[in-house]
Amino acid sequence: MIAHVDPFHAIAISRVAHDLAAEGHHIIHMEFGQPSTGAPALAIAAAHRVLDTDPMGYWESTALKQRICQHYDESYGATVDPEQVLLTCGASPAFVLALSSLFAPGARVALARPGYVAYRNTLKALYLEPVEIGCGPAERYQISARAIAELDSPPDGVIVASPANPTGTIIPHDEMAAIADICHQRGIRIISDEIYHGLSFGDPARSMLEYAPDALIVNSFSKYYSMAGWRLGWLIVPPDCIAPARARMGNLFLTPPALAQHAALTAFDCHDELDGHVQTYARNRDLLLDAMPRMGLERIAPPDGAFYIYADISHLTNDSLAFCARLLRETGVATAPGLDFDPVDGNRFIRFSFAVSTPLIEQAIERMIPWFRACNGTEDDGAMANN
Amino acid sequence: MIAHVDPFHAIAISRVAHDLAAEGHHIIHMEFGQPSTGAPALAIAAAHRVLDTDPMGYWESTALKQRICQHYDESYGATVDPEQVLLTCGASPAFVLALSSLFAPGARVALARPGYVAYRNTLKALYLEPVEIGCGPAERYQISARAIAELDSPPDGVIVASPANPTGTIIPHDEMAAIADICHQRGIRIISDEIYHGLSFGDPARSMLEYAPDALIVNSFSKYYSMAGWRLGWLIVPPDCIAPARARMGNLFLTPPALAQHAALTAFDCHDELDGHVQTYARNRDLLLDAMPRMGLERIAPPDGAFYIYADISHLTNDSLAFCARLLRETGVATAPGLDFDPVDGNRFIRFSFAVSTPLIEQAIERMIPWFRACNGTEDDGAMANN
Repeated sequence: MIAHVDPFHAIAISRVAHDLAAEGHHIIHMEFGQPSTGAPALAIAAAHRVLDTDPMGYWESTALKQRICQHYDESYGATVDPEQVLLTCGASPAFVLALSSLFAPGARVALARPGYVAYRNTLKALYLEPVEIGCGPAERYQISARAIAELDSPPDGVIVASPANPTGTIIPHDEMAAIADICHQRGIRIISDEIYHGLSFGDPARSMLEYAPDALIVNSFSKYYSMAGWRLGWLIVPPDCIAPARARMGNLFLTPPALAQHAALTAFDCHDELDGHVQTYARNRDLLLDAMPRMGLERIAPPDGAFYIYADISHLTNDSLAFCARLLRETGVATAPGLDFDPVDGNRFIRFSFAVSTPLIEQAIERMIPWFRACNGTEDDGAMANN
Repeated sequence: MIAHVDPFHAIAISRVAHDLAAEGHHIIHMEFGQPSTGAPALAIAAAHRVLDTDPMGYWESTALKQRICQHYDESYGATVDPEQVLLTCGASPAFVLALSSLFAPGARVALARPGYVAYRNTLKALYLEPVEIGCGPAERYQISARAIAELDSPPDGVIVASPANPTGTIIPHDEMAAIADICHQRGIRIISDEIYHGLSFGDPARSMLEYAPDALIVNSFSKYYSMAGWRLGWLIVPPDCIAPARARMGNLFLTPPALAQHAALTAFDCHDELDGHVQTYARNRDLLLDAMPRMGLERIAPPDGAFYIYADISHLTNDSLAFCARLLRETGVATAPGLDFDPVDGNRFIRFSFAVSTPLIEQAIERMIPWFRACNGTEDDGAMANN
């Protein structure tokens, strides 16, 4: 039997949203985690030049690998050799590459619940066993050294994500160090998803490389660098993983897109433009945080980074997918149901992505406040009685 | 233990080639299977327009899926629904998607030896068991219905490739039908690699879809469409595979590059330019076929399609990697050792890729004829005694 792999429920919401738009409704897309901005202007200019001059064969950019190493040196004080960097077609295949370079079927990998749906599904598709660690408000929805220490038998690996999807929470310095320490003690490999680095609203997120030199680091140009559709990510592996990871890269994926590699190299020099996007996200976040209590949503994860707010809606529903579908139909605001991120408690959560423009966030809030107020006042079909 | 996956030996040859080029030597790259031409001019123009107007988020082009369906209708008389088409970051991940959507670890998949190295390695990386069927000149180096019928216990799947890499041989109509028939009888799933379609020098290759509607078809824009570095391929799955394949696509890969999808849609209308490349390959093939006997290479696979000549060099060496390295150092012509394609007999074969320009092919022949003549006249260090 092949492994059962769940689809993303947010895609079902998005399809309804596109149907509604085709009918003439104005839809605000807060269901997916992607910037609505394009690549930096200089990166686009570089792409124009390359299009006219380079036939673009199978290619890996040594210059980009070196630039990524420079980034780790400058941003985290971490030393990385270009040989440790693998360029991938986005962060998703970087995870496949990391997991398949480390583990054989049957290996156990711990991860936080709630968490990005593809972690669990990719583990299952590779016949690895997800060991889900339930994390709530007390743990700031994050995996902790204590939780890892308390696992009866140590898993083979652990996935850490900071800032996290769907919550945006960042693991603080001390806890990162403690996680690295307990994993080292228990012989657990760390895979650290750092795709939301650069998007933080207080202290910046730290890289797990600062604490665990044998960790595998996943990142991409899809979020901070605003190049989602260019499909370019990277994986950093420790020296003992270079040979298995390179062999898998060549056979399972071959090479990453050539044009994206050229553009990405330029994107490293576009911090002014990119930090402008972060300022937009910060404004959007402030507006949403201000609106949350007016929508009756009092229990939210602290959105330290990324561009998400994960809110408890258990007083309104016990079916987050139906709830998001109704919110979409009645307000035109598309959101992601918590069910995508948490198969146990996700039916009582909703995720708002605030990566759209500020005027759209303002419109969404205007539409949602009366809708949620009406919802709070009445009893939703699927509402839980314990409110 | 994680599976051992071999690297490509041609990459080692290519690295030496680049080192030699850096030292000032003129290198002719015949080691890789990629066009030296770029994307069609109209596709590049489309890309310029999209770069300036589209922020390019995560995206799958419905129009491109429809255009691919039209292509199957027009070229093969085969009906495909757009829901059956998955757009991937090249053919390599399309294979991962196909194999992981069909098989669980331990499943057995038959394939021809010699064959593209990534088949065997991807099977191993996914913990599937390669069942290699040795194919020589008598079988035109191709898998046959008879060979599949003779397998004691039927494998779960079979990989068919026509035109094939490294040989370029095409499976004729009758044999395609017979393969589809025996696989249907024995309950064997067919995965058909059709990446070299459009590149044939006699009768065009047929699609396995014409014979086996439940076959999975892998193709890409990297060869005939001359867009290797754009990283865009596709997988066609039968209706019963749509759900598992889409779930794996979303989780393991997410979406294919946006710009490449726009450009590829235009590339379907660029047959004049693309057929010009095929004429170049045809000229190169004629030149090489004429040169082979003058190089003392009398036993070659019939290059019906693709852009390869696979030649028997057993009278010269029993170490194809060392032989290719010496040929490169002494003539500046980079080639691929047979070892990449055949772990059993590959040490006595060499693959020439003729996807470079005609003047380069002429130069390569000029350098290789005296070198091979000297080789034939002398005794190579590793020469086999039975010559």
